[in-house]
Amino acid sequence: MLELTLIKLGGSLITDKAKPFTARKALMGRIADELKSIKRIYKGQIIIGHGSGSFAHTPAAKYQTQKGIINSNSLKGFPLVADAARLINEITIDIFLKKGLPVLSFSPLSFIYTKKEKSASFLVDPIKKALSLGFVPVIYGDVIMDENMGFCIYSGEKTINLLAKALKKDYKKISIIYCGETNGVYDGFGKTIAKITPKNYKDYKSSIKGAKETDVTGGMVHKVEESLLIAKSLGIQTLIINGKIKGEIKRAMLGKKIKGTRITN
Amino acid sequence: MLELTLIKLGGSLITDKAKPFTARKALMGRIADELKSIKRIYKGQIIIGHGSGSFAHTPAAKYQTQKGIINSNSLKGFPLVADAARLINEITIDIFLKKGLPVLSFSPLSFIYTKKEKSASFLVDPIKKALSLGFVPVIYGDVIMDENMGFCIYSGEKTINLLAKALKKDYKKISIIYCGETNGVYDGFGKTIAKITPKNYKDYKSSIKGAKETDVTGGMVHKVEESLLIAKSLGIQTLIINGKIKGEIKRAMLGKKIKGTRITN
Repeated sequence: MLELTLIKLGGSLITDKAKPFTARKALMGRIADELKSIKRIYKGQIIIGHGSGSFAHTPAAKYQTQKGIINSNSLKGFPLVADAARLINEITIDIFLKKGLPVLSFSPLSFIYTKKEKSASFLVDPIKKALSLGFVPVIYGDVIMDENMGFCIYSGEKTINLLAKALKKDYKKISIIYCGETNGVYDGFGKTIAKITPKNYKDYKSSIKGAKETDVTGGMVHKVEESLLIAKSLGIQTLIINGKIKGEIKRAMLGKKIKGTRITN
Repeated sequence: MLELTLIKLGGSLITDKAKPFTARKALMGRIADELKSIKRIYKGQIIIGHGSGSFAHTPAAKYQTQKGIINSNSLKGFPLVADAARLINEITIDIFLKKGLPVLSFSPLSFIYTKKEKSASFLVDPIKKALSLGFVPVIYGDVIMDENMGFCIYSGEKTINLLAKALKKDYKKISIIYCGETNGVYDGFGKTIAKITPKNYKDYKSSIKGAKETDVTGGMVHKVEESLLIAKSLGIQTLIINGKIKGEIKRAMLGKKIKGTRITN
């Protein structure tokens, strides 16, 4: 049985939070190079997820899409947020394909359906098959249909965790790597917390600041809590690292020393 | 119970077959205007599908993607074909959104999985929910994962038919309209065949010419045969009309006289 690594590229890493609808293409190209070099030596399979950063978060904040249908503007906003999420995904796919990574985009809106923001049904067979053929499935922070709310925001983290759960039995080991633009999770003094567990989280929670940028998915606290959930329920470890540091993703995947945070049970 | 109309915009209609990767944006804008005016008076719900024309068919023909995995180039070609299909969809969505149509893109690669090119599993809940909220789901000719072949081409027609089948019980009436660039299906003398049924099809088959352009999904014969299948199995009528004639889609939806072909059981 193989290993599987799910790598999430944060929306605040790959887009410019100060400029709506602006991707950091040079950085994304550099990361694509790094992933390509990893793919040559890493024996397992890879899924990539990315956030929608200043693309989808801008219209989502304007229309309060995270609240579902609250007024007539909600219905107007939804397709615009969905399109913005697709747009940053399209840019990502283009850059990665040009660098020679065999990426395939899978749209969360198309394959996940929720009830009260919890996944109710989803189709994972296409992603499984794509992995078995050596392709790299790419998912992204999206808006999806919800039985009760009409629709909801479904972060890249949530889709990453859903896939990790759904694929758990098929792999010897599954790991998750979140790449942001900080050296992991900072405590109240701005110092990296090396390890967060369900036990010690209460000591850190109040000092872990939410992302300061427009982030309707909840920033760092959301990432840590999604990671703790999956650590507790499935024993899957998450590393939160700085994607801006050259070689850091590679070191994380190969189990070498990183300047980040390990979230484990 | 409501009515549902599935409208397929042919790849040869919305793209320029002589120029790879060139969309007919002015025509698409005109069709979007027509659909918007239809949406104001039509009481039912609408799904739009479109072909990938000179976008996906060009790399698909080069890599023989319709054959699945036949050599090492097949794996290289697949993500390129998928990306080309996404690109024409992105252009379509952009034009339709700008015209004020509440469109949502659903990616066949993400929500349909086949065995030997027949649908084995799919997720239709998100599309159902989107329809119930008044959105217009948009699907497209795509490449998807296949249990046996690795992957296969899945035409817009196939996805339209899959959705018509899956949604049949939820609607009072379902109709399909194919918009191409001919006045329906021509016989050997270039004259429109007004009506094709499972009974009279054998008289026409040899004279119905396949599309002359690069079309790995089989051209007009494929469209007629997919329509006959759904007429026989579900009693769903298909109209094949000329999308270039202004007002023709509207006339087709409102049951008025059209210069096209009716396929029925």
